[in-house]
Amino acid sequence: MSAVVDLSSAEREVRDKAAMASPVSDRFVTDAALKPAFFDWLCRMGDNALVLGHRTSEWCGHGPVLEEDIALANTALDLIGHTQLWLGLAGEVEGRGRDADQLAYLRDAAQFRNLLLVELPNGDMGVTLMREFLFDAWHHACLSWLIAHSQSPRVAEIAAKAIKEVTYHLERASDLVVRLGDGSGESHARMQAAVDLLWPYTGEMFKSDAIEAELVKAGIVPASETLRETWERTVSEIFEEATLDMPEDGYSHLGGKQGRHTEHLGFILAEMQFLQRAYPGASW
Amino acid sequence: MSAVVDLSSAEREVRDKAAMASPVSDRFVTDAALKPAFFDWLCRMGDNALVLGHRTSEWCGHGPVLEEDIALANTALDLIGHTQLWLGLAGEVEGRGRDADQLAYLRDAAQFRNLLLVELPNGDMGVTLMREFLFDAWHHACLSWLIAHSQSPRVAEIAAKAIKEVTYHLERASDLVVRLGDGSGESHARMQAAVDLLWPYTGEMFKSDAIEAELVKAGIVPASETLRETWERTVSEIFEEATLDMPEDGYSHLGGKQGRHTEHLGFILAEMQFLQRAYPGASW
Repeated sequence: MSAVVDLSSAEREVRDKAAMASPVSDRFVTDAALKPAFFDWLCRMGDNALVLGHRTSEWCGHGPVLEEDIALANTALDLIGHTQLWLGLAGEVEGRGRDADQLAYLRDAAQFRNLLLVELPNGDMGVTLMREFLFDAWHHACLSWLIAHSQSPRVAEIAAKAIKEVTYHLERASDLVVRLGDGSGESHARMQAAVDLLWPYTGEMFKSDAIEAELVKAGIVPASETLRETWERTVSEIFEEATLDMPEDGYSHLGGKQGRHTEHLGFILAEMQFLQRAYPGASW
Repeated sequence: MSAVVDLSSAEREVRDKAAMASPVSDRFVTDAALKPAFFDWLCRMGDNALVLGHRTSEWCGHGPVLEEDIALANTALDLIGHTQLWLGLAGEVEGRGRDADQLAYLRDAAQFRNLLLVELPNGDMGVTLMREFLFDAWHHACLSWLIAHSQSPRVAEIAAKAIKEVTYHLERASDLVVRLGDGSGESHARMQAAVDLLWPYTGEMFKSDAIEAELVKAGIVPASETLRETWERTVSEIFEEATLDMPEDGYSHLGGKQGRHTEHLGFILAEMQFLQRAYPGASW
């Protein structure tokens, strides 16, 4: 297991606190004209990490083998760490005093901006790993662009912190997709079924809208379409090695980035937000 | 289907509102010395109906056949109606201005007083029906005692209203237990597995404690043990017809009546209470 996921909880806390207290100055953070779009996009990044982190944490104690159980729990913790960074910055940009916790635990489904892909039920281990792989391949391409090109130093800074862990997530998921896709008849069939199930939810990653266009113009974020080539290259290479068929592109479910979600998100939020809803302001 | 479960939602509302505005005077309702125990016992009755009603409602849209789907939804609505009556009276007795909704939606798990039996997951249709049968047989015996013997006119009044529906629930569940127990090899095996799974949760129904003893002394409620004979007669008759084996009495899970619950209750409450937690005071 890589060193990245071997952090103790104390080390994680030090890392996350240090990461949140960024001294980097960034004119976009206080740009009033850009605020609504920037806030929305930061919620997209933060909510992807939050919702996938929650889904991944659902495996805790239920993994098929101990190593995998621990790896998934660590992946979930990494994603929750990213959530704190993205939603922390979202709160700063919004300027209404909401911190990452308040944004995570006190918004309802229609205010969530995550991709539909990450809110789908975990299914079996095949669906869970395939979803992670498909998302990681996009996540890695997106963070790479932000590090290399974003005109927002704060955004580039968060991306630079997150990519170390996401690189490992992608490696780990790729390995497992290959091992299981090119494994037994049963594991191959399950991985192919996972591809076929999840594929119609991947198109949303490459679909732009007016909010994104504003930030593309400012040079802060990539146009979603531009990430498709890198993503498809990663996916097709791994699928070839895994002997999995890549479905024809076709119908895509859309709406998550605009707050129109599947019924699954409401159940996630009911469980995830219970503590802060029942005991407002509670802290450890 | 009996007329009892064929009420329209408007008829239900009229019935429930009329039922809640009881003009019957009852010295126990304002008895300060009895208040803590009386409130607690009323929560036991109300929480059984609330939690089983919620579990039963989870089948809505998922029943194996349309008739069964509708019957389960109607059963759930009956139970929620009983909840309003019991928790409504609990709120009166408590005298702190909490109504049935506030008691249902703003208490956390440790304040819930339902039997562990009713919070268990639904499992398959066999487990759902067997749980309903085992609970209904107790519920019917309990309400019958309250109608015949309770010194509290308000308690007897609620029991008299609820027993009409519970009689039908018990008939329906008994019929289905017989049909499935004495059905195919598969249905018999599933019903017997349901018995074996649920049996260790039935002992709690017949276990007294100090709170109950106070109310038994006042003549308001039956001692739990006294209901066992009627319950066992009902269960053994139906099991014989259903060709199901009654397990030896043995270990019983306890604690629900005192607020010590399984992990399942927290998930039920997270889902059930989301709306009132997220939008406090919201009404239709």
